[in-house]
Amino acid sequence: MSVSLSITATEGAARAGFLRTRKGDIRTPAFMPVGTAATVKAMYTDQVRSTGADILLGNTYHLMLRPGAERVAGLGGLHKFMNWPHPILTDSGGFQVMSLAQLRQMSEEGVAFQSHIDGSKHMLTPERSMEIQNLLGSDIVMVLDECTPHPASLDEARTSMELSMRWAERSKKHHETLADHGALFGIVQGSVYQDLRLKSVAALEAIGFDGYAVGGLAVGEGQEVMFRVLDETVPAMTEVAPRYLMGVGKPDDLVGAVARGIDMFDCVLPTRSGRTGQAFTRYGAINIRNARHADDPRPLDEACDCPASRDYSRAYLHHLVKANEILGSMLMTWHNLHYYQTLMSDMRDAIAEGRFADFQAQFAEDQARGDIAVR
Amino acid sequence: MSVSLSITATEGAARAGFLRTRKGDIRTPAFMPVGTAATVKAMYTDQVRSTGADILLGNTYHLMLRPGAERVAGLGGLHKFMNWPHPILTDSGGFQVMSLAQLRQMSEEGVAFQSHIDGSKHMLTPERSMEIQNLLGSDIVMVLDECTPHPASLDEARTSMELSMRWAERSKKHHETLADHGALFGIVQGSVYQDLRLKSVAALEAIGFDGYAVGGLAVGEGQEVMFRVLDETVPAMTEVAPRYLMGVGKPDDLVGAVARGIDMFDCVLPTRSGRTGQAFTRYGAINIRNARHADDPRPLDEACDCPASRDYSRAYLHHLVKANEILGSMLMTWHNLHYYQTLMSDMRDAIAEGRFADFQAQFAEDQARGDIAVR
Repeated sequence: MSVSLSITATEGAARAGFLRTRKGDIRTPAFMPVGTAATVKAMYTDQVRSTGADILLGNTYHLMLRPGAERVAGLGGLHKFMNWPHPILTDSGGFQVMSLAQLRQMSEEGVAFQSHIDGSKHMLTPERSMEIQNLLGSDIVMVLDECTPHPASLDEARTSMELSMRWAERSKKHHETLADHGALFGIVQGSVYQDLRLKSVAALEAIGFDGYAVGGLAVGEGQEVMFRVLDETVPAMTEVAPRYLMGVGKPDDLVGAVARGIDMFDCVLPTRSGRTGQAFTRYGAINIRNARHADDPRPLDEACDCPASRDYSRAYLHHLVKANEILGSMLMTWHNLHYYQTLMSDMRDAIAEGRFADFQAQFAEDQARGDIAVR
Repeated sequence: MSVSLSITATEGAARAGFLRTRKGDIRTPAFMPVGTAATVKAMYTDQVRSTGADILLGNTYHLMLRPGAERVAGLGGLHKFMNWPHPILTDSGGFQVMSLAQLRQMSEEGVAFQSHIDGSKHMLTPERSMEIQNLLGSDIVMVLDECTPHPASLDEARTSMELSMRWAERSKKHHETLADHGALFGIVQGSVYQDLRLKSVAALEAIGFDGYAVGGLAVGEGQEVMFRVLDETVPAMTEVAPRYLMGVGKPDDLVGAVARGIDMFDCVLPTRSGRTGQAFTRYGAINIRNARHADDPRPLDEACDCPASRDYSRAYLHHLVKANEILGSMLMTWHNLHYYQTLMSDMRDAIAEGRFADFQAQFAEDQARGDIAVR
C-alpha cells in the first residue's frame, strides 16, 4: 500500500496539502509526536489526537526489544495494542541501535548489538527491520540506514552514505515481499556534503520510494548548517512525494524547514521537555521550575487554549514539577504537543492563504520578545 | 459552615445517604481519593470526578511545606489551585508529621519538626493546623490529634488519647474564630482499648463536632482487631453525624466497615498500588507485572467499564508497567479509582435496596475466587 501526496497550496518552497494513507489523511506540513515504547509518554491517545496529531511515530528499536514485534503482532498490531487507530510511521531502528545499544558491531550485513534493557543479543538487518515494522503494522516504513555521525570526514560520510544506499535497496526488495505492507520511505544521507547529498537523492530516486526523508541532521551541526543542507538538498528531491526531516526539532527549526519545502517532522522535544519542565509558548520557551513562576497566577501561554494552559496557573505547574508529580509531566507534555500542533496548523493556514512570509516574520518577532515575568 | 447528614436507607448497622457540604453533596458511604500534594497522583481532576468521586482529601503536612498554605491562599485556595471545584477534606497534618518529618519534638503545645523536603523548621499546633486548613479553603477540617502508634500499652494509649482530646478542644476553639471556616470533625483515639475508645467518643461529643472520625486504625493491628474496635466503638457514636474511618483501606476493609456503620473513607491504596502495578478487580487483586499477563489480550477486569479496562489489554498494561511508562501509572490508577468508586456505588445501591447482606456474601465469594489466568 502506497501513500499519495496532494499539494493544495504553495508559497515559495513551502507547501501545504495532505498525505493519503491506508489509515487516513495526514495534513501537511505535519508534526509526528514520538510514541517510543507504544506510548506517547504521559499522554492518553485521545488527548494526542485532540491536539491535532494525524500520525504518530513508533520506535522499532524499543519495540523489538520490549514487548517484541512478534508479541505486538500476536496482539493485533501496534495500532490496537496502543489504542491509536490512526496512521503510524515507524523508524528503522538504526538510529537508536547506534545511540542506545551496547557492544554494537557493524557489517555489510547489518548491525549486531546487545539490548540496553537486558543484554540480550540481536541482529538488525535491512530485511529484519522491514519484518519488524511489518509485524508492528506500520503504515509508513523507513528503510534501514546508518545515521552518519557528526562530524564526519568526506570519506567517512561517503562510505556511510553508500552503505545506507545499498541497505535502502535491500530494504525495498524485502519490503515488497511482505503481506499487507505499508508505504516505504527512503532516507537521504551524506552528512554536510552537498555532492554526497545529491548522489544520495539520485540513488534513492533510482530505487523508487513512496516518500523521501532527510536523515543525519539535528545531530549537532547547528541550525545554520542544517538549513544550508536543506537549501542544497531539497530542490533536488521530487516534488510529487512527501519530504520528511527526521528528528527535527525546535519550533524555529520547523518554521525554517517548512519554508524550505519539508512536509513532515518528528521530534521528542515537546514530550521530553514537558517532563523536565520546559514549556514552549508564543513568546519563546520558559522553564517552569524557575522560582519566578511560584506565585504566578497566569496560564503558561495566554495564546493557548489547551486545558494545561486554560485550567491551571504557572504557580500550580511550578509546584507540580518541583514536587516531581506525574501530573506535572502530563500537563506540560499536553501543552507542548498542543503548541507544536497549533504551530503546524498555523503554518498550513498561512501557506493556504498566501501569507506564510508574514507568518514567519511575526513568529520570529514573537519568539524574540521572550516571556515577560508577571509584575 | 457545618455539614448535614441525611440517611436515606439502613440495613443492620450499614447506612446510605448523603452529606450536604458548602461545595455540594457527598453520597455516602463515600470513598475519598487522596490528593496529597494538590494532585491525585497521575490523574486529571475531571477523570477523578468521572470515576464517581464527590470529595477529595488533601494533606496538610505536604501542602504546608510545599507550596505553602499562605501561597495557596494567595492563589485563590486549594480548589482553584488544583482545579477541583467540589468538596475537599483536609487532614490535620499530625499523622504525616509523625511518619515523614525529621527531628520531631512532641509537647503539650504541639509538635516541632523539620521538613523532610528541605530541613526547614516548623511547629504544628492545633491552632496552626486550623489556620492552615482554613487557608487552604478546606470544606471539612480535621482536628489535630496524635495517631497513637500500634502497639501501645494501655497507659501509653490513655496518655496519647487524652492529649488528643485536649488538642481537639483547642482545635474547635480556634477553628470557630476563623472566617469562612468549613465543617470540623473530631477524631476518636484509644488504640485497641474499648474503655479508652468509649471515653474518647464521649469527650468529643461533649465538645461537639460536625462529624466524627475513627483514627489510629489500619496501623498494623490487622483487620480482625480493626473490626472488633469498630464493633465496640461505632455503636457509641451519634447516629446523626457522619462517621469517617481514616486511612482505610482494602476493598474488603471497606465492605466490612460499611457493614459496621462507617460513612466515609480515605486511603492511598488505589492510587499507590496503581503506580506499582497492582490492580483491584472483581475477582481479587492482580499484579500486572506478572509474566502471565505478557500476552493476555483480555481487559484488566471484564466487569469494569472504565477506559483502562475497556480500551487496553492486560498485555499492554503489563508492557507499560514493566517499561516504567508514565501511562502505566495513569491507566492503572484510573482503573483502581474506578473500581473503588464502583464498589462504593454498589454498596450504596445494595443498602438502598435492602440487599446489602447478599451483596456482602457475593463480594466475598468473588474475591475468594481469585483471578483465573487466560488459557
